[in-house]
Parts: sequence; C-alpha cells; structure tokens
Amino acid sequence: MKAYKGFLIDLDGTMYRGTERIIEAVDFVKKLNENNIPYLFVTNNSSKTKKQVADVLAGFDIPASSEHVYTTSMATANYIAEQKQNATVYCIGEDGIKEALQEQGLQLVEENPDFVVIGIDRSITYEKLAKACLAVRNGATFISTNGDIALPTERGLLPGNGSLTSVITVSTQTEPTFIGKPESIIMEMALETLGTKKEETLMVGDNYQTDILAGIRAGIDTLLVHTGVTTKKHLEEIEVHPTYTVNGLDEWEIK
Amino acid sequence: MKAYKGFLIDLDGTMYRGTERIIEAVDFVKKLNENNIPYLFVTNNSSKTKKQVADVLAGFDIPASSEHVYTTSMATANYIAEQKQNATVYCIGEDGIKEALQEQGLQLVEENPDFVVIGIDRSITYEKLAKACLAVRNGATFISTNGDIALPTERGLLPGNGSLTSVITVSTQTEPTFIGKPESIIMEMALETLGTKKEETLMVGDNYQTDILAGIRAGIDTLLVHTGVTTKKHLEEIEVHPTYTVNGLDEWEIK
Repeated sequence: MKAYKGFLIDLDGTMYRGTERIIEAVDFVKKLNENNIPYLFVTNNSSKTKKQVADVLAGFDIPASSEHVYTTSMATANYIAEQKQNATVYCIGEDGIKEALQEQGLQLVEENPDFVVIGIDRSITYEKLAKACLAVRNGATFISTNGDIALPTERGLLPGNGSLTSVITVSTQTEPTFIGKPESIIMEMALETLGTKKEETLMVGDNYQTDILAGIRAGIDTLLVHTGVTTKKHLEEIEVHPTYTVNGLDEWEIK
Repeated sequence: MKAYKGFLIDLDGTMYRGTERIIEAVDFVKKLNENNIPYLFVTNNSSKTKKQVADVLAGFDIPASSEHVYTTSMATANYIAEQKQNATVYCIGEDGIKEALQEQGLQLVEENPDFVVIGIDRSITYEKLAKACLAVRNGATFISTNGDIALPTERGLLPGNGSLTSVITVSTQTEPTFIGKPESIIMEMALETLGTKKEETLMVGDNYQTDILAGIRAGIDTLLVHTGVTTKKHLEEIEVHPTYTVNGLDEWEIK
C-alpha cells in the first residue's frame, strides 16, 4: 500500500448505504481528516447542491463541509467554462446543476444556447425536452451530467439521467458528452480542485462500472471496497482490475 | 400494374403535406371510392382518435369516415387483445391510444399491469415514466405504438414517441415491441380490418423507411409516391426497392 497524498471518494455504497452509515468508512475519513490528508467526495448526483450533499454527510457524522464535495454538476459547469467563457446554457435539471452553472458565471437561457445541459429532472416536461432537441439540432453542444440509467429509491429503480438524456440523443441522433463517472472528465476536474497529482491520488468506491472505471480511465490508482454494488464474483469477469480491493475501509491503513 | 383489390394508404406526405392538400392524391382516393375498392388510411399517429383523423381527412375533401382510418393505437389495442383478453394496461399517451385500448375492452390501471404501452404524450411526467419503468422491471410486457424519433411541427422537429420510449428502454434495459410502421404488426392488423389478402393489397406511401419497409416486411406490394419524404436520390442507395414508384398518384391507373 502506497501512502497517497489525496483521496477521491464515492458516496452511496462507500460512505453509507441509503440511510445506513458504514461505520468503518466514517472512521476512515476521520483518520484522513486527523492526518491532514486532503479528500474530496465525488458524486454523480447532479440534483443536490454541494451544501445539500455536505449536510447529508454531516448527518452521518462524516467530517465534511461544502469544500469536501465535488458533484458532477460542478464538473459540468467547470467543463463548460473551460470550453467557452460567458457561455449561454439551456439547462434541464434540478437545484444542483442550476446553482453550479450560475456559480461559474454561465448564463441560463431558454433559446439559442451555446450548450444544452441535462441532469436528472423529476419535473421533466415535453416542452423542456422539445427546447433541448431544437437547440441541439440548431448546433448547441450537448452535455449530460451523467449516464446513470437508474436511480435506486425505496419504490425500486426509477429512471436515471442517462435514460432522460436518451430522449435528446435518440431524437436528434446526436451523442452527448457525459461528464460524470465512469467518464474521466469528472476525475480530471476533481483533481484540479483537490490539488494533488494523479500518481499520488487514490480513487475509492464500491462500484466498478462507475467509480473504478472512472479512476482507470483517468490514470488514477483505485481502491474498490466491497460494501456496495460490486461483489467479488463480479470482479472475476473483469479484465482490468482495481489497484486494490478491500472488504471494508478499516482494512486500509492510512499512513 | 396489377388490379389490386384493397389499398393501405399513408397520410402525411401522401394525402397532404402539413396543411396543404395533394390534389392528385385526393382524386386517387375519390376514384377508389367510386369503384368500390376498399381502402384504409394507416397512420403512426397514436395521439388522435380515429374520428379526429377522419375529420382532418374530411377537411381536405378526402372521402373518409372513421371506418377508413387505422391508427397505430388501434393496432396496438388489437395486438394486446390478441395476446391476452381482458388484459390490464398501464398507458402513457394521449386521447387516441387511451380510446383504442378501452374500445378493445382493455382495462387501464396504474399499478401491476400486464402491459406497459407508450404513445406520444406531450404531457409526459417523470412520475409516468417512473411507473412504466417499475412495471416493466416487474415483468409487464413493454409495447410502444411507434418508433418515430421526431415529430415535424412549425417549430421544427420535436421529440417523437421513439425518443420518449427510449427512457424506458434505456432505464430497464428492455426492448419494447414496436407496433407502427415500419413494423409489420400494424400491416397485419390493418389487413384484417381491410379484409383483403396480402397478394391483392397495395401499400401506398411517401416514406421508404416507414411505409414501404412496413409493406416489404409484411409481404405486401408497395407503391412509393415522391410527394413527401423519400426522393429519387434516396432510392439509389436502397437495396430492396418498392414494387412501384410514381411521381404523383395521378400516374397510377385504378382498374
């Protein structure tokens, strides 16, 4: 085990399971905090603001403030700002993505945008989708915060942003740029905020298909923890393995 | 040219272009009518009831009543009734599909349906999509009235039912059965209503990708008319050609 200088950490399945805290994960973050090792929670949740995510973490007794949160909405806004300053954006989504875009000085417009952005929107309407399709057909750059196909809830698996995104993809026959895990874009953007180099940073998560692949694609070492989605059996069928695998984060020694 | 005993005829691009009547097409149908040759207008429009479609046709001076209209909603309802009598259906869609399902004695329910049906719904909500996804994951048979990706309007190309359908397809990773053109299902169902045999029936339409392919797949002779979508240049790239091609329906002699 290498002594990493910075940690990117997933949330659901890694720090908690739904409403249940994962105690050894909380202890893991407390140790990082005590040792002054920088960490950033990286989430594909585009609907919550960073403050809302930090509040959820605080509720689990995890040492986290807004500065420890990096959402795919923030990555999306950073990505667009790097592409074009003062860009105009037509945005489908909830609080998190709208706040992030505005914090980057991007202007939300209803017509003739430079970019069309879609994040999960549980108030989706046909008119919103129609405006997005017209704008993409008119040449706007098409961005999706994340490709998650389903959203785990108490009712079961509900449509995720990847499935809402497909309305625009299918109708306009235009593929979006996805920002969230497993894409490397969110990793690159998060690293800029964390301030550590790739080779001294570890990506920690429970989901091979999102967390670990994102790390692999970005060239960052990865730690898979079996407290969530990906089981040991899943790993048997996989070609490129995580750098490290543990049953619980108490098995990881922080140096 | 063979003397066909029955005609299946497309609407937009074949009988009219948006709000503009195609005069030679109107004359063509008048001649069929005078010669007592049965005909049925076959449309992928799932939102209108057959009465509403007939009213549009009457407005163009085309001899048509509800009995001359066969919508993909009617085909969908027939198809389901053939699969299971008294089936329960969770339906996303507008007036046309709901009326058609109820006319077949199918019961519209909100939970635990045997079938999930989606047709174009310009009042789509996340909750409607969520219910559909939960039902499909729970084993309901997934049916889509048609796969049209875009809807031509004065504002431009808006999302078609094929693109709304993709939310459920992508989220549940389950492919629907599509009923409308270019599928053969709507052709088979329409033939039952028209009452003529495949070999004595002609499918007439302007769109190779929907009308003509539907005829070809169902084993029905086809007549492509160049008054709408498919140009002569398009046909150069195509492997299986329509049985006949004309510039206008005045070129077709009714015997």
